[in-house]
Amino acid sequence: MNRTKAFSNFTRRDLLSLIGATAGGAVMYQAMTNLGHAAESGYKGPVKLEGDPKGATVLILGAGLAGMTAALEMRQAGYNVKILEYNDRPGGRNWTVHGGDKFTEIDGTTQTCEFDKDQYINLGPWRIPYHHHAVLDYCKRLGVQLEPFQQLNYNAFLHSTEAFGGKPQRIRDVKVDFQSHSAGLLAKATKKGGLDELVTKEDQEILLEAMRSWGVLDENFNYVKSIHTAEFRGYEKDPGGGVGAKPVPSDPYKFEDLLRSNLWQYLSNFSLYEFQTTMFQPVGGMGVIGQAFAKEVGDLITYQCKVIKIQQNDKGVTVTYEDVANPGTVKEESADWCICTIPLPILAQIETNLSSEMKGAIAAVPYVSSVKFGLQFKRRFWEEDEHIFGGISFTNLPIGQISYPSTNYNMGGKGVLLGGYTWNGPNSYEFTSLSPADRVAKAVEYGAEIHPQYKEEFENGVTWAWHRSPYTLGCAGDWTDEMREEHYQNLCKIDGRVVLAGEHCSYIPGWQEGAILSSLDAITRLHERVIKG
Amino acid sequence: MNRTKAFSNFTRRDLLSLIGATAGGAVMYQAMTNLGHAAESGYKGPVKLEGDPKGATVLILGAGLAGMTAALEMRQAGYNVKILEYNDRPGGRNWTVHGGDKFTEIDGTTQTCEFDKDQYINLGPWRIPYHHHAVLDYCKRLGVQLEPFQQLNYNAFLHSTEAFGGKPQRIRDVKVDFQSHSAGLLAKATKKGGLDELVTKEDQEILLEAMRSWGVLDENFNYVKSIHTAEFRGYEKDPGGGVGAKPVPSDPYKFEDLLRSNLWQYLSNFSLYEFQTTMFQPVGGMGVIGQAFAKEVGDLITYQCKVIKIQQNDKGVTVTYEDVANPGTVKEESADWCICTIPLPILAQIETNLSSEMKGAIAAVPYVSSVKFGLQFKRRFWEEDEHIFGGISFTNLPIGQISYPSTNYNMGGKGVLLGGYTWNGPNSYEFTSLSPADRVAKAVEYGAEIHPQYKEEFENGVTWAWHRSPYTLGCAGDWTDEMREEHYQNLCKIDGRVVLAGEHCSYIPGWQEGAILSSLDAITRLHERVIKG
Repeated sequence: MNRTKAFSNFTRRDLLSLIGATAGGAVMYQAMTNLGHAAESGYKGPVKLEGDPKGATVLILGAGLAGMTAALEMRQAGYNVKILEYNDRPGGRNWTVHGGDKFTEIDGTTQTCEFDKDQYINLGPWRIPYHHHAVLDYCKRLGVQLEPFQQLNYNAFLHSTEAFGGKPQRIRDVKVDFQSHSAGLLAKATKKGGLDELVTKEDQEILLEAMRSWGVLDENFNYVKSIHTAEFRGYEKDPGGGVGAKPVPSDPYKFEDLLRSNLWQYLSNFSLYEFQTTMFQPVGGMGVIGQAFAKEVGDLITYQCKVIKIQQNDKGVTVTYEDVANPGTVKEESADWCICTIPLPILAQIETNLSSEMKGAIAAVPYVSSVKFGLQFKRRFWEEDEHIFGGISFTNLPIGQISYPSTNYNMGGKGVLLGGYTWNGPNSYEFTSLSPADRVAKAVEYGAEIHPQYKEEFENGVTWAWHRSPYTLGCAGDWTDEMREEHYQNLCKIDGRVVLAGEHCSYIPGWQEGAILSSLDAITRLHERVIKG
Repeated sequence: MNRTKAFSNFTRRDLLSLIGATAGGAVMYQAMTNLGHAAESGYKGPVKLEGDPKGATVLILGAGLAGMTAALEMRQAGYNVKILEYNDRPGGRNWTVHGGDKFTEIDGTTQTCEFDKDQYINLGPWRIPYHHHAVLDYCKRLGVQLEPFQQLNYNAFLHSTEAFGGKPQRIRDVKVDFQSHSAGLLAKATKKGGLDELVTKEDQEILLEAMRSWGVLDENFNYVKSIHTAEFRGYEKDPGGGVGAKPVPSDPYKFEDLLRSNLWQYLSNFSLYEFQTTMFQPVGGMGVIGQAFAKEVGDLITYQCKVIKIQQNDKGVTVTYEDVANPGTVKEESADWCICTIPLPILAQIETNLSSEMKGAIAAVPYVSSVKFGLQFKRRFWEEDEHIFGGISFTNLPIGQISYPSTNYNMGGKGVLLGGYTWNGPNSYEFTSLSPADRVAKAVEYGAEIHPQYKEEFENGVTWAWHRSPYTLGCAGDWTDEMREEHYQNLCKIDGRVVLAGEHCSYIPGWQEGAILSSLDAITRLHERVIKG
């Protein structure tokens, strides 16, 4: 029996117990860390590209986060780097819109944002999970200051036109009542012997106490109106100060009403690893990250270059592009290697001599359709009237959600809401059957069903349909397990002198972390090939 | 049958349904608001003290938030106001400690804080719930900038010396697994008919789907290792980018291990109304609020006045105090009215001719014993090594909890942890059997069981025992329902020309909101009496 095999029968937890039994906490912690009990990340700290590339040239297509990450690290490693970008700004989907910004969808409809100074909307990515280590490390290295992004706000709303007479419910009430009623039922089923085949008698005793604590149950395992339950679901009248201060508890909802409301479907969302506290956003908007990258590599970027052809042979890669600022002017750029971060729906339309496997992969992956809205209001009524500070209200209306700004809390003044965010489905296309102005009007109309103040307070708004963006034709790679099986490795492998990068070349589609990690992986492999010669 | 009675049989929800059936959303919202469906707060916006007090004088005892609120509003209303404060600074328990600050407990032990510039610890209140409307409104009016306080961080730890071999567990794992296993058991009990007497067949069908969603259950209602469950509890290996990016799911804990760990006892804490998102802290420390009040009313405060006697008659109130800066020097101050915010354990020792009812109330309410620790470390290892950004780890060790700073995230450098926080119980007194230096050493020793890096990274620390504070002799009023029944109204009512205020005169003990609301209530009642003459 060889040693490796013996070890594999010995589980990691066994090993940890053994170490724990014979050593102190510090050793234990080290062991735990070394064995990777904490989730192993694809990011191992700043990439190290060792060895001299001897003046090799690299042409990067796309100045989004994947492209700029590659540029930053490869120049540092000694490459001669150039970037061609179709748009007239850096960042790609990393994009914060401010007053005065202009942007155009594929039909030529141009919008000009009319927000006040200091107001903004992130039309691309808008939040950073705590475990997106690569994004966080680049923020640190590039001096991007972060502040918490509130994903879950107990005081925001869950809303369904089909439930509670269309009246928005506080997330707090639904979340606390749902958990407590579930705990109450489980406790009662336990008392009645319903778990006798599943849980030992001894554990049932603990389970009952746990349900009482977790579910705020009374001595008979009922979840009922009381000061105790109000300490969780909130009060009819909050506790106060002075002579009239005695609090009044609130009425829990009946479980059957919650079940039939279907509002429980939003609850699991709050526990997603991607959305757990602590989340972040850069101070000043997500676009600050793109700007920070551009501060480093902006000198390498040529803007308004629409790539129309990518040809490679065993000597190098030649990219043909149109200079969009001078329509009809076609230019060429050549390099030893090419890193292509062009989104797949665009890349699929470009003439290339890539391998058939890679072409197949490029053609196979559809992109998510998505529409976002930024709406400016005269005052922050959600804070002033409803005490909602950050977070998201969810609704079955076509806007899907309303997100409140996670910054400048409690200071009054104007504010911009994310007034809607669709992700695939008919809503994306129904909105884009309308002009941007009509889309915004529609989002305001829907939002007013949740916040009647919309009608009085709305000032101006913008909308962006990612599937109608000339630069992406979609929001993010929309992979299925089957597609991954067939195409993922073909998409990621180095094809002659070309390698792809971007969120579509990752298992974290639609997130900046995917873009950066895919880029680091691509340049690491490319560099190895270059150094080997 | 009179009209009021008829109405009382007609529930609020009935009325809302009626309105909902006949009117649009906006009317519905108005009705909802008018009927107070959103929790009714004791704070109705800035207090209005109308009518001329004709030069009446008011002496306020204590320059904490209650005292300064009273001073601010009463001067505004036309009173002649003075404040006497025992301590040498404003704010009272609202107190942020910085490097260079000195403070002394009742035995004369003085500590000098050695933190670096820009580091701080809140030794008093440290967080503001979103529904503490009075605190939030004063922050707004006084220009105090807020940032989110992270109460729940899924990536912080739950730790018990009695569970999992003493190894800290991520809150994420315990929280997600506990909920999912509970959902799985409830689903199975349902399938087996265990709920047939409690839930209709139709609702059981919805319940099963709800448990599947909420509990991340598979098709057989099992909670098992899978990519789907990893999307909630995290991965063994996170999804990444490029060729080796495929994620590896993690192993859920067995429910019996969670039940026996007792770590579930911490879970209900995360749902408390007081601790729900979004919570706040002032940028720069909680003490910024006290400073902001002092900017308004600092000119009214005389510091280092230790009150030793309060005497009133039908003409006015005379307060005798020692000028602590000149020991033995006794002075007097008289006024028409007195607002006394002195904490009860101190007030109980002062000679007064208050009514026996009020004296009885003052003597009846014990104060919470509490010790806090602020520990400075060379680097923010909790962020750099463990990816914990803000939030709290809970432990059964005497320190009770470790809270990570909710500010300056991800920028490296030094940091200060709340290294322990006791609330009543033997731990408070066991710590205070030690000198401050030994207490800090002990907190570091305990903390190292959770974060072994403590040993290497600790630099210096401070501790404060509220029950040994010369200014309070305790942390907050420790009311029981029985005490409230007997004494609360006697404590709050105007006694001749004296009225009390402070968190002890509220149903929100230990919170700044209680102090401010009690003060607003006291001055409103006092003003009415003054105006009536």
